[in-house]
Amino acid sequence: MPGNKGVVYEGPGKVEVHDTDYPEFELKDGPGVNPANVGRKVRHGAIIKTVATNICGSDQHMVRGRTTAPQGLVLGHEITGEVAEVGPDVEFTKVGDLVSVPFNISCGRCRNCKEGKTGICENVNPDRPGSAYGYVDMGGWVGGQAEYVLVPYADWNLLTFPDKDRAMEKILDLAMLADIFPTGFHGCVTAGVGPGSTVYIAGAGPVGLAAAASAFLLGAAVVIVGDLNKERLAQARSFGCETADVSEGEPWEHIERILGVPEVDCAVDAVGFEARGHGREADTEHPATVLNALMEVTRAGGALGIPGLYVTGDPGAKEEAARQGSLSIRIGLGWAKSLSFATGQCPVMRYNRQLMMAILHDRVQIAKAVNATPIPLDQAPRGYQDFDKGAARKFVLDPHGMLGKAG
Amino acid sequence: MPGNKGVVYEGPGKVEVHDTDYPEFELKDGPGVNPANVGRKVRHGAIIKTVATNICGSDQHMVRGRTTAPQGLVLGHEITGEVAEVGPDVEFTKVGDLVSVPFNISCGRCRNCKEGKTGICENVNPDRPGSAYGYVDMGGWVGGQAEYVLVPYADWNLLTFPDKDRAMEKILDLAMLADIFPTGFHGCVTAGVGPGSTVYIAGAGPVGLAAAASAFLLGAAVVIVGDLNKERLAQARSFGCETADVSEGEPWEHIERILGVPEVDCAVDAVGFEARGHGREADTEHPATVLNALMEVTRAGGALGIPGLYVTGDPGAKEEAARQGSLSIRIGLGWAKSLSFATGQCPVMRYNRQLMMAILHDRVQIAKAVNATPIPLDQAPRGYQDFDKGAARKFVLDPHGMLGKAG
Amino acid sequence: MPGNKGVVYEGPGKVEVHDTDYPEFELKDGPGVNPANVGRKVRHGAIIKTVATNICGSDQHMVRGRTTAPQGLVLGHEITGEVAEVGPDVEFTKVGDLVSVPFNISCGRCRNCKEGKTGICENVNPDRPGSAYGYVDMGGWVGGQAEYVLVPYADWNLLTFPDKDRAMEKILDLAMLADIFPTGFHGCVTAGVGPGSTVYIAGAGPVGLAAAASAFLLGAAVVIVGDLNKERLAQARSFGCETADVSEGEPWEHIERILGVPEVDCAVDAVGFEARGHGREADTEHPATVLNALMEVTRAGGALGIPGLYVTGDPGAKEEAARQGSLSIRIGLGWAKSLSFATGQCPVMRYNRQLMMAILHDRVQIAKAVNATPIPLDQAPRGYQDFDKGAARKFVLDPHGMLGKAG
Amino acid sequence: MPGNKGVVYEGPGKVEVHDTDYPEFELKDGPGVNPANVGRKVRHGAIIKTVATNICGSDQHMVRGRTTAPQGLVLGHEITGEVAEVGPDVEFTKVGDLVSVPFNISCGRCRNCKEGKTGICENVNPDRPGSAYGYVDMGGWVGGQAEYVLVPYADWNLLTFPDKDRAMEKILDLAMLADIFPTGFHGCVTAGVGPGSTVYIAGAGPVGLAAAASAFLLGAAVVIVGDLNKERLAQARSFGCETADVSEGEPWEHIERILGVPEVDCAVDAVGFEARGHGREADTEHPATVLNALMEVTRAGGALGIPGLYVTGDPGAKEEAARQGSLSIRIGLGWAKSLSFATGQCPVMRYNRQLMMAILHDRVQIAKAVNATPIPLDQAPRGYQDFDKGAARKFVLDPHGMLGKAG
Repeated sequence: MPGNKGVVYEGPGKVEVHDTDYPEFELKDGPGVNPANVGRKVRHGAIIKTVATNICGSDQHMVRGRTTAPQGLVLGHEITGEVAEVGPDVEFTKVGDLVSVPFNISCGRCRNCKEGKTGICENVNPDRPGSAYGYVDMGGWVGGQAEYVLVPYADWNLLTFPDKDRAMEKILDLAMLADIFPTGFHGCVTAGVGPGSTVYIAGAGPVGLAAAASAFLLGAAVVIVGDLNKERLAQARSFGCETADVSEGEPWEHIERILGVPEVDCAVDAVGFEARGHGREADTEHPATVLNALMEVTRAGGALGIPGLYVTGDPGAKEEAARQGSLSIRIGLGWAKSLSFATGQCPVMRYNRQLMMAILHDRVQIAKAVNATPIPLDQAPRGYQDFDKGAARKFVLDPHGMLGKAG
Repeated sequence: MPGNKGVVYEGPGKVEVHDTDYPEFELKDGPGVNPANVGRKVRHGAIIKTVATNICGSDQHMVRGRTTAPQGLVLGHEITGEVAEVGPDVEFTKVGDLVSVPFNISCGRCRNCKEGKTGICENVNPDRPGSAYGYVDMGGWVGGQAEYVLVPYADWNLLTFPDKDRAMEKILDLAMLADIFPTGFHGCVTAGVGPGSTVYIAGAGPVGLAAAASAFLLGAAVVIVGDLNKERLAQARSFGCETADVSEGEPWEHIERILGVPEVDCAVDAVGFEARGHGREADTEHPATVLNALMEVTRAGGALGIPGLYVTGDPGAKEEAARQGSLSIRIGLGWAKSLSFATGQCPVMRYNRQLMMAILHDRVQIAKAVNATPIPLDQAPRGYQDFDKGAARKFVLDPHGMLGKAG
Repeated sequence: MPGNKGVVYEGPGKVEVHDTDYPEFELKDGPGVNPANVGRKVRHGAIIKTVATNICGSDQHMVRGRTTAPQGLVLGHEITGEVAEVGPDVEFTKVGDLVSVPFNISCGRCRNCKEGKTGICENVNPDRPGSAYGYVDMGGWVGGQAEYVLVPYADWNLLTFPDKDRAMEKILDLAMLADIFPTGFHGCVTAGVGPGSTVYIAGAGPVGLAAAASAFLLGAAVVIVGDLNKERLAQARSFGCETADVSEGEPWEHIERILGVPEVDCAVDAVGFEARGHGREADTEHPATVLNALMEVTRAGGALGIPGLYVTGDPGAKEEAARQGSLSIRIGLGWAKSLSFATGQCPVMRYNRQLMMAILHDRVQIAKAVNATPIPLDQAPRGYQDFDKGAARKFVLDPHGMLGKAG
Repeated sequence: MPGNKGVVYEGPGKVEVHDTDYPEFELKDGPGVNPANVGRKVRHGAIIKTVATNICGSDQHMVRGRTTAPQGLVLGHEITGEVAEVGPDVEFTKVGDLVSVPFNISCGRCRNCKEGKTGICENVNPDRPGSAYGYVDMGGWVGGQAEYVLVPYADWNLLTFPDKDRAMEKILDLAMLADIFPTGFHGCVTAGVGPGSTVYIAGAGPVGLAAAASAFLLGAAVVIVGDLNKERLAQARSFGCETADVSEGEPWEHIERILGVPEVDCAVDAVGFEARGHGREADTEHPATVLNALMEVTRAGGALGIPGLYVTGDPGAKEEAARQGSLSIRIGLGWAKSLSFATGQCPVMRYNRQLMMAILHDRVQIAKAVNATPIPLDQAPRGYQDFDKGAARKFVLDPHGMLGKAG
């Protein structure tokens, strides 16, 4: 039995790479594991040798201390790897398969899974629908920023790449299938993006850039990305986006400059609750800024896709209401414009096979769009720091040194 | 040329029935008419002899003085009648046709109309997309609580009943096609109601009751209606709804009692911004109460249909934010549950023909569900008062005494 | 270990009730079992004690000798029962659960299952996508017109009724969830039936009647059922359908008489390839008659739902082309009218939970609509004969005498 | 009043350019004009100065003498131009606007138009739903391969380009919006093409190439175009398509060679009833060949989009059934694979604005994809001939010499 090593949350602002337990086909007690899940048999699981595992913006929420994540939590929910072992109930997944792991854990047996709503599976998190690897309050499934990780319900959850060698040639692109590519895509789909659409995407972090690449894949006519971070905006321009530097003017002003009208057909919130203000208010958090600005710039009858995370509780928020997850939203404006709003975790399984096909056949360069940057597992702490400072990069951890020749 | 008589807003709390101008095929200046619309030619219009014209909850917003509606405004946007005259550009509508008039005025020529979004037509209101008869800030089209009213773009807007005599036998039901039946139905459709659904409808006023009847028509398994008004709840029970008296307990408590679980598949907000609190807070306005309660009681992955009106400005609100149309909404809860939200005016034309068919073939008794009650035009002021006090009735004005034998 | 007894196909026109093997968690060799499936482990399976198991029109295709079904095949794919045993990999299904078994067997792991297309699962039939119990060329899963039957992938396939006692009170209705109710419903859904629709359903056998009941549940304004069999037409009238006796006049003539126009919004083919002609041609098979008549009576822009079975080979057909499954279809007419066509097995899982809710909450009386008639298992041969002669009944076999008090 | 000149059908195989009547705001008697339409007032119409007007494959059906088109019929339904005059009832369209004219004429007032089904408008063709300019049995609206043409219901039908100068720079691309780009796009949409799809398109004529370009715009992973014509296949390869020379092997063989499996997700029939056989049968017409081959190569659960024309009567067909529009179709195969089929005219208005946006923002090079080739109006006869011989070109007539600098 090999050993294991993983990225561990050690308290606000602090992550370390430690030796961790090698997975077994049973969920063991540990930091963040829901007591009701301790001892759960995972005969349907597979142990994945991690080939690529990305640092995500939502990991940062925990690392910044904005959550109740416990010390010792192994992080990581964006996992791509090779099947090392399968449990006795696994029928179709084979050892050696190269696979993408949807960040949402789902059972493939409950009502929601049967309806394709794998982001809110009822059977994996004893507390509420929905789960993820290495995440606070999500049931306690151990994170995948590690050499090895256990994936339950393997036959259901795993997406196997059809040709392993060909897949390794595009492994940095395929690594984005675990979360941000489908998440950005879902934001666009729920915002109604299609051929000829004009689209505004709030946020030029990895999810925003993935949403922008998705918008192009969906045939959008014009994709405008807004952010305060000039480096990230430059990254957006590198693949054809128009950009809105919201430290200089409101989104509608940029949109009017670009399109001649101050509105777009579709809008995507790829920022979430840690939003800062626009213009002069850019230095402070204004958690409802993005939603309210998007209502302003979305055409009457349009839709907002909201993949950006909003939380039920935010102990670090300035205002009491925000601490409870309540924000002051211009619902009256939204109503007058007949807008629709779609929220929540992306159900990755709904999209990942199709997006894999788009990658394998060169229809999208997602790794390039998000500036995917492989780094060794040991450098994860540095990756977290750089990302937190706003590096226009998507860091991809490389626990087994297999990404060397990639990209 | 016949004379005309209509229901006129004379200031907060006050409506009167006055002589008014008989319509011409041109929009004249008058209270509430947008200057940019004065003199607009309406050769494509028809003059309707009003057979039935209903008092709507949204009229009450104006009459209560919650808006900037000007004195002298002729009210009324729920119109059913006979075509008395047609303009020179009308091709298919014939004098004598018995018709339903969608409350949203639309042109049938703009992008939104072509997409079926007639609630946000771009060509009828110079200020913004969307318009209605007799309504503040909606362009200035004269209201239809009157003997005669002008309907523009008649060939596009009017729904002609196929058999006049047969239609007159169900005229009270058909009178609900102008607004509340499609509006309630739209609430259900956008909430995802279908065969087997469990549904919670906030509000047992006419729109809520219409939503409940719509839910049954759509095949819902269980329809639960919540309100503070016991008479309206009894009305809901009269056609098979379960009820939740929210003066006694939170909606989720009632739902759990009825269904065994505290959640429903779908939720409809038929209340809007003038909501009052639940339980002990029932005496005061809590404009976000309904939305927040609906997020609580809607199953993860579900949807909220929001036909209830939320406004961009509410001068009478207690809180500054609410005065600007901003409400404190538990978006974090909605996001955690992957909920979707659909807002805005119902595009009546999307549904009215089908609902007419359901009425004509006895598949729904909408007049009975909402307790449609005909009264003479002259008694409109009394109808407004009774409705404002919470009468479990939908008042239908009868300007020409043609409803006598109806129902 | 209990014994077992089942309905066995013994050659054209002949079924018998025999002792059969009690199921094990492995697929054994036997009549009709695909060699590639012999020895397949079914640790994920459950053994069901059959409470109700229906005779289906598609069983008749085999019994009439129109297929290559082998002698000795245990028939039956409409199964409702109690979980008697679960395999070692079953996690959520419990012994004692009262369940409905979708007739389509599916794995819950392949691309099609993940997309909700359980009628064409890729992993259960080695020859092609799609499978069913007790059916020729469907992989060899043993039929359920028996005391006990094995259901693979139990956690995925089974629909558990929430309250066993309450379910037993409606067991004859719930027994229709295994096939004909969802199948008729699917026909309507794919034909675009919704509130206010006018619908023509070809065929007043159980699927046609189930489609008619479904159309009402979906809110249809008028439901017209056509057949040659007067008893079945009377059954259709018993729950509010209009009827078209196609031995006397073409469907369009009846439709014109009923609706005033010779067309409907939506059409459902609940007959399939064994259709006979209309009017004077009613005595002979005309396999394309129904499809061609439906194109004629469906409004331009409408859709045809085609749950009626069309086969790839029909050795007993009169014409060579029909023997290969090719029919002479008026595709030119369909094209001129911009019609759409949806074919194939109903994916039962897409609908059965919702329809169960509609049954449990008294929104539909499906057993009454199809005239569900329980008979002892031993009388299955008689049931097959009567059904073949056109009895207006849906026979429900009762292997354990548990239906006595039902209905 | 200027004169007029148009392309006139003079009998099988023969078109000529003649002087024709300059349009008035009334439909006059003439070759092919439905008697019930003679004298129809068109005060809502606009007279278009034709800037670009294309020769269409469906014109060829008439010119080859396969229809009952009368001598003297002015051809042409793919019209782009400048508004020269507007009728008295036109409100929003302005003289000088540069516009695209959907080939389907529609009223914007009937049920079908309100539902977005403009290909089957009920008010423009007295014989049946659906109409087009210059086409046999379509009501008698005069064709647009002319210097000037009348467009009824101008405010509804016309798509105005937002910036005339910028539009003139892409006029050859925009000229494809009148028919083939939306038609090919509709084929893909109804076939279910989306990001990551594998697509097979039968036919590399202009509609097939437009479908291929549309498939890429919709995000398809692999687009395979099949034809017998090597020049057209080379054209398909020029913008990234894979190709299947069906004179050498069946479509499934090519698909297997390209994809590794013999099936695609989605299939488009861009050929229609004048199909010839594959392989050795390529020399003779086999009108059902394409449909049957597409059923074979489409994955179970997939869909066929059928923009290719199938007719209700084909006097020139070899077989009696085909003369009546009946073809021998392998419906049994389709049913076994749960396929869906969508037929009929593309409702251009549903797509043209979005596709215009995609053109204007350089997201698609449709003129290049179909090899749009401007020729003077006088050379129309030559264009018809070359196109009939299989030239891999889309001929664009240039009645006013305005395309000189285009492209």
